[in-house]
Amino acid sequence: MTFKDYIQIRERSEHLCSHLETEDFVIQAAEEVSPAKWHLAHTSWFFETFVLKPYLPDYKEFHPDFSFFFNSYYNAVGARTVRNQRGLMTRPTTKEVFDYRAYIDQQMKMVIERDLTAGVEETILLGLNHEQQHQELLLTDLKYNLWLNPLLPAVVNIKEYPKQDERGWVKVKEAIYEIGHEGKGFCYDNECARHKVYLEDFEIASQLVSNKEYLDFVNAGGYEKPDYWHSDGWAWVQQEGVTTPLYWLLEDEAAYYYTLDGKKELDLDAPLAHVSFYEAAAYAEWAGCRLPTEAEWEVGSKKFSWGERWEWTNSAYLPYPRYQKAPGAIGEYNGKFMINQMVLRGASVATSPGHSRSTYRNFFHPQYQWQFTGIRLCKK
Amino acid sequence: MTFKDYIQIRERSEHLCSHLETEDFVIQAAEEVSPAKWHLAHTSWFFETFVLKPYLPDYKEFHPDFSFFFNSYYNAVGARTVRNQRGLMTRPTTKEVFDYRAYIDQQMKMVIERDLTAGVEETILLGLNHEQQHQELLLTDLKYNLWLNPLLPAVVNIKEYPKQDERGWVKVKEAIYEIGHEGKGFCYDNECARHKVYLEDFEIASQLVSNKEYLDFVNAGGYEKPDYWHSDGWAWVQQEGVTTPLYWLLEDEAAYYYTLDGKKELDLDAPLAHVSFYEAAAYAEWAGCRLPTEAEWEVGSKKFSWGERWEWTNSAYLPYPRYQKAPGAIGEYNGKFMINQMVLRGASVATSPGHSRSTYRNFFHPQYQWQFTGIRLCKK
Amino acid sequence: MTFKDYIQIRERSEHLCSHLETEDFVIQAAEEVSPAKWHLAHTSWFFETFVLKPYLPDYKEFHPDFSFFFNSYYNAVGARTVRNQRGLMTRPTTKEVFDYRAYIDQQMKMVIERDLTAGVEETILLGLNHEQQHQELLLTDLKYNLWLNPLLPAVVNIKEYPKQDERGWVKVKEAIYEIGHEGKGFCYDNECARHKVYLEDFEIASQLVSNKEYLDFVNAGGYEKPDYWHSDGWAWVQQEGVTTPLYWLLEDEAAYYYTLDGKKELDLDAPLAHVSFYEAAAYAEWAGCRLPTEAEWEVGSKKFSWGERWEWTNSAYLPYPRYQKAPGAIGEYNGKFMINQMVLRGASVATSPGHSRSTYRNFFHPQYQWQFTGIRLCKK
Amino acid sequence: MTFKDYIQIRERSEHLCSHLETEDFVIQAAEEVSPAKWHLAHTSWFFETFVLKPYLPDYKEFHPDFSFFFNSYYNAVGARTVRNQRGLMTRPTTKEVFDYRAYIDQQMKMVIERDLTAGVEETILLGLNHEQQHQELLLTDLKYNLWLNPLLPAVVNIKEYPKQDERGWVKVKEAIYEIGHEGKGFCYDNECARHKVYLEDFEIASQLVSNKEYLDFVNAGGYEKPDYWHSDGWAWVQQEGVTTPLYWLLEDEAAYYYTLDGKKELDLDAPLAHVSFYEAAAYAEWAGCRLPTEAEWEVGSKKFSWGERWEWTNSAYLPYPRYQKAPGAIGEYNGKFMINQMVLRGASVATSPGHSRSTYRNFFHPQYQWQFTGIRLCKK
Ligand SMILES: [Fe+3]
Ligand SMILES: [Fe+3]
Ligand SMILES: [Fe+3]
Ligand SMILES: [Fe+3]
Repeated sequence: MTFKDYIQIRERSEHLCSHLETEDFVIQAAEEVSPAKWHLAHTSWFFETFVLKPYLPDYKEFHPDFSFFFNSYYNAVGARTVRNQRGLMTRPTTKEVFDYRAYIDQQMKMVIERDLTAGVEETILLGLNHEQQHQELLLTDLKYNLWLNPLLPAVVNIKEYPKQDERGWVKVKEAIYEIGHEGKGFCYDNECARHKVYLEDFEIASQLVSNKEYLDFVNAGGYEKPDYWHSDGWAWVQQEGVTTPLYWLLEDEAAYYYTLDGKKELDLDAPLAHVSFYEAAAYAEWAGCRLPTEAEWEVGSKKFSWGERWEWTNSAYLPYPRYQKAPGAIGEYNGKFMINQMVLRGASVATSPGHSRSTYRNFFHPQYQWQFTGIRLCKK
Repeated sequence: MTFKDYIQIRERSEHLCSHLETEDFVIQAAEEVSPAKWHLAHTSWFFETFVLKPYLPDYKEFHPDFSFFFNSYYNAVGARTVRNQRGLMTRPTTKEVFDYRAYIDQQMKMVIERDLTAGVEETILLGLNHEQQHQELLLTDLKYNLWLNPLLPAVVNIKEYPKQDERGWVKVKEAIYEIGHEGKGFCYDNECARHKVYLEDFEIASQLVSNKEYLDFVNAGGYEKPDYWHSDGWAWVQQEGVTTPLYWLLEDEAAYYYTLDGKKELDLDAPLAHVSFYEAAAYAEWAGCRLPTEAEWEVGSKKFSWGERWEWTNSAYLPYPRYQKAPGAIGEYNGKFMINQMVLRGASVATSPGHSRSTYRNFFHPQYQWQFTGIRLCKK
Repeated sequence: MTFKDYIQIRERSEHLCSHLETEDFVIQAAEEVSPAKWHLAHTSWFFETFVLKPYLPDYKEFHPDFSFFFNSYYNAVGARTVRNQRGLMTRPTTKEVFDYRAYIDQQMKMVIERDLTAGVEETILLGLNHEQQHQELLLTDLKYNLWLNPLLPAVVNIKEYPKQDERGWVKVKEAIYEIGHEGKGFCYDNECARHKVYLEDFEIASQLVSNKEYLDFVNAGGYEKPDYWHSDGWAWVQQEGVTTPLYWLLEDEAAYYYTLDGKKELDLDAPLAHVSFYEAAAYAEWAGCRLPTEAEWEVGSKKFSWGERWEWTNSAYLPYPRYQKAPGAIGEYNGKFMINQMVLRGASVATSPGHSRSTYRNFFHPQYQWQFTGIRLCKK
Repeated sequence: MTFKDYIQIRERSEHLCSHLETEDFVIQAAEEVSPAKWHLAHTSWFFETFVLKPYLPDYKEFHPDFSFFFNSYYNAVGARTVRNQRGLMTRPTTKEVFDYRAYIDQQMKMVIERDLTAGVEETILLGLNHEQQHQELLLTDLKYNLWLNPLLPAVVNIKEYPKQDERGWVKVKEAIYEIGHEGKGFCYDNECARHKVYLEDFEIASQLVSNKEYLDFVNAGGYEKPDYWHSDGWAWVQQEGVTTPLYWLLEDEAAYYYTLDGKKELDLDAPLAHVSFYEAAAYAEWAGCRLPTEAEWEVGSKKFSWGERWEWTNSAYLPYPRYQKAPGAIGEYNGKFMINQMVLRGASVATSPGHSRSTYRNFFHPQYQWQFTGIRLCKK
């Protein structure tokens, strides 16, 4: 690993924010999203905590309070700030956070340009993957934070709604398959161990469900009939008053949505985005199909193209056989979230370049819509 | 099927209530529990709605409002009463509900003693299994409802804490196994289709975790250290202030618990009961083990005895391959709950005689403690 | 005071319940209402705690736990049961509560038939007034508890909707007046000290607002226009979805309401009941009038008849000049509630005979509708 | 009125913010507080809406959406933004808000420098008083918004804790007095009509309760004994876990508080600030005194100095005799808040120069601590 590898990834975080106003960095519109400022600082805190402090002799903290401020879910590393008050921290300012990033990068340069031991290099690699994960969250959180503003600001164009072809069906034969990470490349602990699964015959769609297809479901009264929905999904629809995917604006004369590039007309041919698991499952039920399991997805993925939407599977997020938590603070990373969440496979238009692989297991609670989530149908 | 088969199961519901005061039938201490009166009426409503009305010519309803009152989650069969207000329905009275049961039984006698078609018999069988399921809930809900009363009333003795032997470990070899229901006997839709699974080697405990073993976890600070817990589990512990299994009363001089037969001293050798999935998983983590998957449990169950506790597995409640919902109202039965819940296997001291089988898939949300739930450890 | 005086008031409590089913005594449909059983027991507890224990030598408690169970807001007298769980206490049973009442009455007979000191007699008098207050609450709470039952049971006829004459206006001249309790009769601490107030000229209605008048307000869109409402009142209307007084059932063909004697057609000429302060104030604003202050009401009350509805005034519940709390536990009685509540004057169809006087200060939070509350208009 | 009068008041709003970072203008830490940016814009919106649009021919709006953004509680003037989402509006930016202010001032110059009709001048005067009111709120909201930041930033020094003399008692004799606004100067509608009140003899403190006196109450267990508290006050203490006035930091070695000028040692001789009505009333009870009524305060105020703290009275916020709402949108100003709030009299260290008078009726809900509120004792 060279410093250039490192800084290329780090710079992308700042680049994504280049059209933000100072105010845009501050806010947090829901407990599950974080301010842009927080993402920028927290990813730097990761390097400070897990690389600079343990491995750089005489490292001097940028600011003694930052390790308190920018910690997140790592219970093993000291007290955390209250998750739902991140948007109230006006200080450190955005400028101070950018200064913090610059300081960390300069210190990291020293670490990287010395002889790296395997342990440090592995931790830096984890830190860079962590940064990339937060780059995607930075974008999705930003979209949610700005969406509540009636001015619907345009801040970055990541081509959220690409074109796609007509749907076909890919067939997979009954057999024992292997899934999970293999080889020497980077992966998260939750992708291991690679293991055998027995799959029956199935067919999986070559394309994602489009805006047009989903609009048909909306127009057919999909949000009004409990039969298509899980019991918890129907309760969610009723309580939250959900009637469309997140960010849709169905107006009298036309259909629109909010994108990070501002309000646009709904592109009917583009893949649907911003549905919850409940919506994905209800749509599949309505369409007479089902969602794939994550094993079906991983096995099938060799035969279709993917990467535009995080695709909801019908698999709960649970450990693979022989799953081992990494030791220490980093070990809290994934295992503790293995309950109440559903697995998403693929990647999205907001995923950082080089951060996708077919064994990647993303996971969210079934009610969340704010990621670039979509639907791929499956049938026997 | 004879009327005697039918009435034997039906009478057990009333028998379980023989020491209740009229007042005890009324209340509902939490949204997820129901009043005893409601269980007694709802199980009768099932026969009225799915057997008597469709199959008994000239059947006359006992009361025109009961089908509104005692419906539950069957959205396809008309409006439901608000779930959390069942405990406010003082009318129909307990006596009227017993009269309703007698009327239904008398009408069912006519149906059963005529020539039964296969369709009717199958529905009656489902109704009797439904009654047995509610018999268990009647007991667990009653325990919860009476528990809040400082007098801790004793109402029925179901031998909640049987003795058990020392723990051993049962080994199972890596192979393709089949799980799911097989043959002609009764089963729920969620037990089908029988299908192949690939399992690696594992060992599973021959006995359940005992009160003594769990008390060690409590005394070792198990409820104070986030490391053992899922993130959502730890949040649950903090928010609800949980420090022991439900119904435990740790007093200065001794440890007690509440049973349906009143307050008793904690029997250290008996199997633990009334833990949530979060507690089960945290205990397993602390003990250096894990919970079995439901496939592991089903395959292993031939080699150990079970039936005293519903055993939390580390499997989410999801459909088996080729799962099909039953058509119509009865079809709402199981599929709509296949999200956000964990599978429990086995049976419990509160399960009705003849209602257990090794393919049975019980399911609850991970925070619930009020069933007779326990822990069986697993390790590689 | 004779035992006959005592027992006459006590028996009325039981008489009001003569048509209840056992189940009806148990429930509590909202935190601010109590079960019938609780009222019957709590009023007895008052005599046990403040008369029998201090004044009857060798008095033996009926049950050691009852003083814990049936205490209410008297913080000075030991722990209280959780207010919103009164409806979950199935034990002591209704029968046991009636036994408790009989026991208390028998013991009180001994106290009363001996030479009463002034202190004891005063406390008994307070206890009887307390019983009468709870008789009214027993009725209003019962109405609320049964209202949620779709069967709308009829349990007692207290002639809730009497006839009234046409409205006239009574004039009162500017002057210094005296208000507050005077003389030797019983009163609560909050009616003292009698004191001077300066009033300007005003006119006050000789009759209450009728159902017909209020229906005009409803039909004129009164619940849809924020202009008539206090800011907090409008928020209440929006959040609770209020569109009529409590217990009204506006159906397509006719207007009904629920009474303790069952569902009846709305009597247009009868005085309106079951409005909150917010509704009373909004109606007055719409009608171009205002609500009287409590001083205006008390001074004016000599010139009109009253006693069918508790009449909302525009006075907050605050201490009179020279107000003194009674010492000890009984002292907690009234003063601690002197914030956030509005004064109601008069009495109602549910008030016990002999329990009304023109200086009586009733008080409730402004959102509550479940008392027999009404509106008397005032203008300059 | 000259433009200089106008601009002097307007400039103070901006001057108070001169040490804020851009980020500090954005946030809203509780529903009842507003962002600094919002105050700056809303006060300008007032002039735009009530002066420029109606009175300046050909006035061109600065931005078509601002009248939607910066409206507050004036229901009569179009839709309002959701009150608790003000802190999520990153756009318009702080800079745009300052531009908006400059534009409004430039337009107002044109209005003011032409011949003003009485109606316009009166509305401008109301707008300037409105601006001054918001200047105080800007400071108190800012303090609350920054308080949650562990860095406790210092942003403006308004000398929050001035010195005061020893307490004496001022006597007032029983008589008919007049209270309410008199003469031609500016006042709010709630200060009218001036009217007679009958007061009994009373004594009122010449000084406010000091930090030292209140610390004695804290140390005497004042927050632990329900006897001193209103029932609602005690519930507030328990639910919110209140143990001191807002902004106090009782550390092991010394007592501190947060001020807008940063964290300081508690000045024992300075007047107490940031107590709720509940705390004020509980303190008075503990001290064997009471709070004055607003009439007592107004009559007594000629004999003591005041203006450092808003002083809680024991009077609810209700209309004076002959109170009239102003017509139209401005009429919504005060009357709709006349329920559930208590009157505060005096002024505070945060009150704008020239904005105090002895008839001023400030009002807040009894649980709020974030204004510069204090206690003046009264006794008979
Ligand atoms: Fe992170
Ligand atoms: Fe059922
Ligand atoms: Fe009472
Ligand atoms: Fe304003």
